[in-house]
Amino acid sequence: MNTTQVKAFGTESAEADLKEVNINRREVLAKDIEIEILYCGVCHSDLHTARNDWGGTMYPAVPGHEIVGRISKIGSDVTKFKVGDLAGVGCLVDSCQTCDSCKNDLEQYCSNGWVGTYNGQDKHLGGHTFGGYSEKVVVDENFVLKVPTNLDLAAVAPLLCAGITTWSPLRHWKVGKGSKVAVVGLGGLGHMALKLANALGAEVTLFSRTPDKIQDAKDLGAHNVVISTDQDQMKAATGKFDLIIDTVPSIHDINPYINTLNYSGTLVLVGYLGPLDPFLNTVPMIMGRKSVAGSLIGGIAETQEMLDFCGEHNIVSEIEIIRMHNINESYERMLKSDVKYRFVIDMESLKS
Amino acid sequence: MNTTQVKAFGTESAEADLKEVNINRREVLAKDIEIEILYCGVCHSDLHTARNDWGGTMYPAVPGHEIVGRISKIGSDVTKFKVGDLAGVGCLVDSCQTCDSCKNDLEQYCSNGWVGTYNGQDKHLGGHTFGGYSEKVVVDENFVLKVPTNLDLAAVAPLLCAGITTWSPLRHWKVGKGSKVAVVGLGGLGHMALKLANALGAEVTLFSRTPDKIQDAKDLGAHNVVISTDQDQMKAATGKFDLIIDTVPSIHDINPYINTLNYSGTLVLVGYLGPLDPFLNTVPMIMGRKSVAGSLIGGIAETQEMLDFCGEHNIVSEIEIIRMHNINESYERMLKSDVKYRFVIDMESLKS
Repeated sequence: MNTTQVKAFGTESAEADLKEVNINRREVLAKDIEIEILYCGVCHSDLHTARNDWGGTMYPAVPGHEIVGRISKIGSDVTKFKVGDLAGVGCLVDSCQTCDSCKNDLEQYCSNGWVGTYNGQDKHLGGHTFGGYSEKVVVDENFVLKVPTNLDLAAVAPLLCAGITTWSPLRHWKVGKGSKVAVVGLGGLGHMALKLANALGAEVTLFSRTPDKIQDAKDLGAHNVVISTDQDQMKAATGKFDLIIDTVPSIHDINPYINTLNYSGTLVLVGYLGPLDPFLNTVPMIMGRKSVAGSLIGGIAETQEMLDFCGEHNIVSEIEIIRMHNINESYERMLKSDVKYRFVIDMESLKS
Repeated sequence: MNTTQVKAFGTESAEADLKEVNINRREVLAKDIEIEILYCGVCHSDLHTARNDWGGTMYPAVPGHEIVGRISKIGSDVTKFKVGDLAGVGCLVDSCQTCDSCKNDLEQYCSNGWVGTYNGQDKHLGGHTFGGYSEKVVVDENFVLKVPTNLDLAAVAPLLCAGITTWSPLRHWKVGKGSKVAVVGLGGLGHMALKLANALGAEVTLFSRTPDKIQDAKDLGAHNVVISTDQDQMKAATGKFDLIIDTVPSIHDINPYINTLNYSGTLVLVGYLGPLDPFLNTVPMIMGRKSVAGSLIGGIAETQEMLDFCGEHNIVSEIEIIRMHNINESYERMLKSDVKYRFVIDMESLKS
């Protein structure tokens, strides 16, 4: 298969910094789209993968799955896009497209395994996939998103992961006018959850450990802030919420939040992968038919729905633009939560 | 308030056996129904309450919340029943009837606290409520159920708790033709779950630790049995079920069952109150949008729906009839799971 070498930024090992590397992209096949990447958001998963925090990282690792750019080439059978269009690519670049999940537009739950935008199994070139920290990417048109033209393009990039990861549970659990939604954690995902839940018409609350986020939360769409370390405030919130979106990526006690769910309410985890320690107590769950659930990104159709919604409601991520060469320093800042609320790489900087 | 003294069976302390006691029942108020109790099922909660396993038991404790009998008296404003009708009483005898839960026919999640048939707060006489191990009970007609006349009355009694506790999640999670339902635990609740899920048109599987329950499970409505201690069988069941009803009342690891849920599937706990130990792992929950939920008995309208369904489909509990005076011995047998599948007290035996 013909390939083109492109510049990228990646790492050869868990311990090494990211640096410039060369990778190969396939020449467009009949259904493929080549995108010249303009901006790429920086997700926590990028850092976890680069450093092999979850195990299973294949090197060289080139992260990045919040990709926006302009179409530079299309295959002969492409029907949905044309050269020059804006386009987005999120966390998925392929799936079996035949299983029950895929047929139901839930490619993220493909029972035969979806292909991640990076660190996935490259069906075309063999080896593994490389993400958006690169000049170009080539993707099957079924996994390419249309990007609203009225939004700040750099600030659209994080919608492809942080946006859809919070949008999908909001939609699946039918949040709308009158819903009472709470969000745990105010980072890349949390700030998008506030904006999206607000725009869907919900009454939105942020749980925060400290009062210093109150003003930011309100500016982002929260109607209320509950300080989770304040027992009186937590008690006053008992039985209040229909849906809690818990975006915290590290281990934490979810039991206090369960008490703030209304009967039949759900707490959905979108950030933390691991054991629920301390033990989850089933008593309030049984006494109020409450659920604890997980949710992973979103399907392609749902991602398009979210992008269209954001276009209509003028919603983008809050971002800080960085240069590609500052990625290692940005990772360190992310580890200290020193970002409001998402880094986005200006890929023009990779050229210089 | 006028009262009548009736014979009952109860205990004065957690350590004492149950024995004959006298209790007071109020004279019927305008909306009240007095029921001469014919049969009362024996639920694990009866034993837990008598022995104060959960704390909070008020003595003397008179258990019993699977009550069927014949109406012996009605108040002046009763419209739904007449003297001589068969009637049932389950786990609830009152609730606020004004909160959002009550207005939505979910009295079991009453935000102002529902009144248990026993060990609840008696709003009329003060003190606490006494259950069905007694000659008569007086209940507001809104909490009295109509009993199908075509069924074996003794075998209807367990429907009032074991039946509705499994029916409610089957209905809430929309089980019907084509649904794949699994049941964990084959006791009073589990055997009803098999029967009801089967009658709703689901493909029904029992998880059992040992093969000795296979024939019973199939006789009760299971299409398949998966031996949960057999790793190959558990692996073969990966991703299979839409809903798992977990009826096990003691601490156990639910993680292996989560792996057998299909994407978007739910495991609902109806039996175990306490911490989920070992830790619940969020990874498969996030990767497949799976939920862990709890569910408590059911509302009055839903209980009536279940009884009507059982009448139409000729469904009753599998029972062993006991005499009131054998209750202590029966509790010991329950602790050894030596019952297929529910003890029911013939209340005639209390008279002798």
